[in-house]
Amino acid sequence: QWPKEQSRSISWSPAGSRRNIMEQTIKVKTALHSSDIKIASKSLKQLAIYLRQVWSKRQVALITDTNVGLLYVQKIKQQLVAAGYPTEVLTITAGEKSKSWGQLEKLIDRLAAAHFSRTDGIIALGGGVVGDLAGLVASLYLRGISVIQIPTSLLAQVDSSVGGKTAIDLPAGKNLVGTFYQPDLVLIDPTTLQTLPDRLVAEGYGEVVKCAAMVGGSFWQLTEQIKTIADIRHFAGQLIAASVVFKADVVTHDEPETHQRQLLNFGHTLGHAVDKAAAGRLFHGEAVAIGMYQLCRLFEQQKLTAQGTTEKLADRLLAVGLPLNDPTLNTPAFYAALQHDKKIRHDQLTLIYLKKIGQPDFYPRPLQEVIDFLQKNLSKNS
Amino acid sequence: QWPKEQSRSISWSPAGSRRNIMEQTIKVKTALHSSDIKIASKSLKQLAIYLRQVWSKRQVALITDTNVGLLYVQKIKQQLVAAGYPTEVLTITAGEKSKSWGQLEKLIDRLAAAHFSRTDGIIALGGGVVGDLAGLVASLYLRGISVIQIPTSLLAQVDSSVGGKTAIDLPAGKNLVGTFYQPDLVLIDPTTLQTLPDRLVAEGYGEVVKCAAMVGGSFWQLTEQIKTIADIRHFAGQLIAASVVFKADVVTHDEPETHQRQLLNFGHTLGHAVDKAAAGRLFHGEAVAIGMYQLCRLFEQQKLTAQGTTEKLADRLLAVGLPLNDPTLNTPAFYAALQHDKKIRHDQLTLIYLKKIGQPDFYPRPLQEVIDFLQKNLSKNS
Repeated sequence: QWPKEQSRSISWSPAGSRRNIMEQTIKVKTALHSSDIKIASKSLKQLAIYLRQVWSKRQVALITDTNVGLLYVQKIKQQLVAAGYPTEVLTITAGEKSKSWGQLEKLIDRLAAAHFSRTDGIIALGGGVVGDLAGLVASLYLRGISVIQIPTSLLAQVDSSVGGKTAIDLPAGKNLVGTFYQPDLVLIDPTTLQTLPDRLVAEGYGEVVKCAAMVGGSFWQLTEQIKTIADIRHFAGQLIAASVVFKADVVTHDEPETHQRQLLNFGHTLGHAVDKAAAGRLFHGEAVAIGMYQLCRLFEQQKLTAQGTTEKLADRLLAVGLPLNDPTLNTPAFYAALQHDKKIRHDQLTLIYLKKIGQPDFYPRPLQEVIDFLQKNLSKNS
Repeated sequence: QWPKEQSRSISWSPAGSRRNIMEQTIKVKTALHSSDIKIASKSLKQLAIYLRQVWSKRQVALITDTNVGLLYVQKIKQQLVAAGYPTEVLTITAGEKSKSWGQLEKLIDRLAAAHFSRTDGIIALGGGVVGDLAGLVASLYLRGISVIQIPTSLLAQVDSSVGGKTAIDLPAGKNLVGTFYQPDLVLIDPTTLQTLPDRLVAEGYGEVVKCAAMVGGSFWQLTEQIKTIADIRHFAGQLIAASVVFKADVVTHDEPETHQRQLLNFGHTLGHAVDKAAAGRLFHGEAVAIGMYQLCRLFEQQKLTAQGTTEKLADRLLAVGLPLNDPTLNTPAFYAALQHDKKIRHDQLTLIYLKKIGQPDFYPRPLQEVIDFLQKNLSKNS
């Protein structure tokens, strides 16, 4: 059984010294580590207040990229320095190509050159690329120094901010090298979405819909109100909080036996394969939208998913322009990618599907059976 | 307080099918993981028996180096393949230079090219370089796949087999990049020391003496019997077991508040600085011998260490030709290295010293105070 809506643990508390700004704090506990995810509007403007709650004074490496850096970095650096955190800004080129061995090595060399010690810290300010890469830097340098994640894209806010995954890519595939490493704090400021391009807002919403479809209830109802990309920005705080609460519950209750964490792969098995076959043309959240819709459609045809579920899912995704299909689906490149899915264990693949909205379940099958099933059914009525 | 001799947990049990071969199993428990260290003579000849106890059938990458590979790898590969573990041998160049980004990347590329999955495994067969590097490969590839460590040098058997440290080096210093990652099994075959060069046997014994000096009692008495390098080989099983039991206890009881693990740094603060200043001329165990002796001498002068302790320590080390001093000690290069010790936290350095044999203690001081003390006293009567 998976996390129920009522098991959520949001606490509302006034942020810093301002009375009318509310923040939501979600706790994530793993065997070794407990960390907070705070969602608070305009929190970037008072970053030092949040920093002081978790870190004593220390040297900080602020890792960001060429897009996000332009928007925020000077003001943040001024704030940090004024608050007693000497700050070195390390800027990487925006884009997936920076998740490389070369970039990882360069960042770590910069820390060593500046004599960063185990009691110093890293702040990752940016989207998933910055978070994944800076998290890996933090987990490897001196076998681990503190890190705070400040995700600025919707996808990173809902997807990569929970669970402590870090990564770089290999030519053979994305995220093939990485660690699990918990940040001391994840700070999410939904106002960063005001400057995020529409297509990136929409792809992040693909992950939100994934969470809402598994949680059901009022979260699913909330997504019914989202008819435009402007609506996503308007409801961002609520959408992010509900997604993060769901993910935090899943990760907290993950055990080697139950593999609760696998629930988060809904839409990801087909999604990753389409993503790889499309060779960069699709964004991650777009590929997940396609993966969810197509899997739901096939399972509904098989009567494993309640009738009408696929239509409801499609409504949510189409409202903000997310794709439901791609020419690479069901091609040799798609199956080649599927066969090297890194979630395959003992030639077995566990698909996640919906019995109905709010009721996800595991569907473990031999890889070959999954492929045969997809080849037989994906071509029909897509 | 630190682990007492009586708290040891060796269990004796017959190994495999042969009646007269005894093995010792030492359990190491950390918050997330529990793993066994098995010490058994000639266990390499029946590796498949040990493997089956911890691993289901799977694809294996056997990582070794150009020295150790020549001695063992063909026979081991035959054994593994016959036992149902398809094995790919990955051989690195022997020597510290292989603990590099380039070598790490090459090994991971080989795993990806062979489509290793999360349920496959890595065996590290070799000294500390192979263990550190292969352990890091295992912890990073797909965010972690299983690893078995088979250390073949005395230093690796007593020093790096416990605690799950993995690492590569940077130009700025050794082991500056790495992870903590527990192997599923550490298998130690003391007969591998028969082919290990004398100087490498002696340096490993430097770490054994470090452990014995902290444990005291019968372990310390055992080292009194070691008068030659041949004696080390003769008593290898006992010396390794006693060292590993001590280290396993320390690591098991390590907590963020007590920092028990710091005890293992006895001799290492001065040792690392000499090691670095000597720029490769000294072996690690030799540098530790110098570090232990010099620190003990200064603390005995200060009457913090019982009279006669330094002389006893020197007897053990000199018996097998280990050095007690080096021209780089007390030079600017030595202090430069000391100032960038990665164990410095908040400009504070915790020296580990002996009140007497069997009674180590912590001595935390500001870095500058340590440097002043050393500069004042190291020049006297060295």
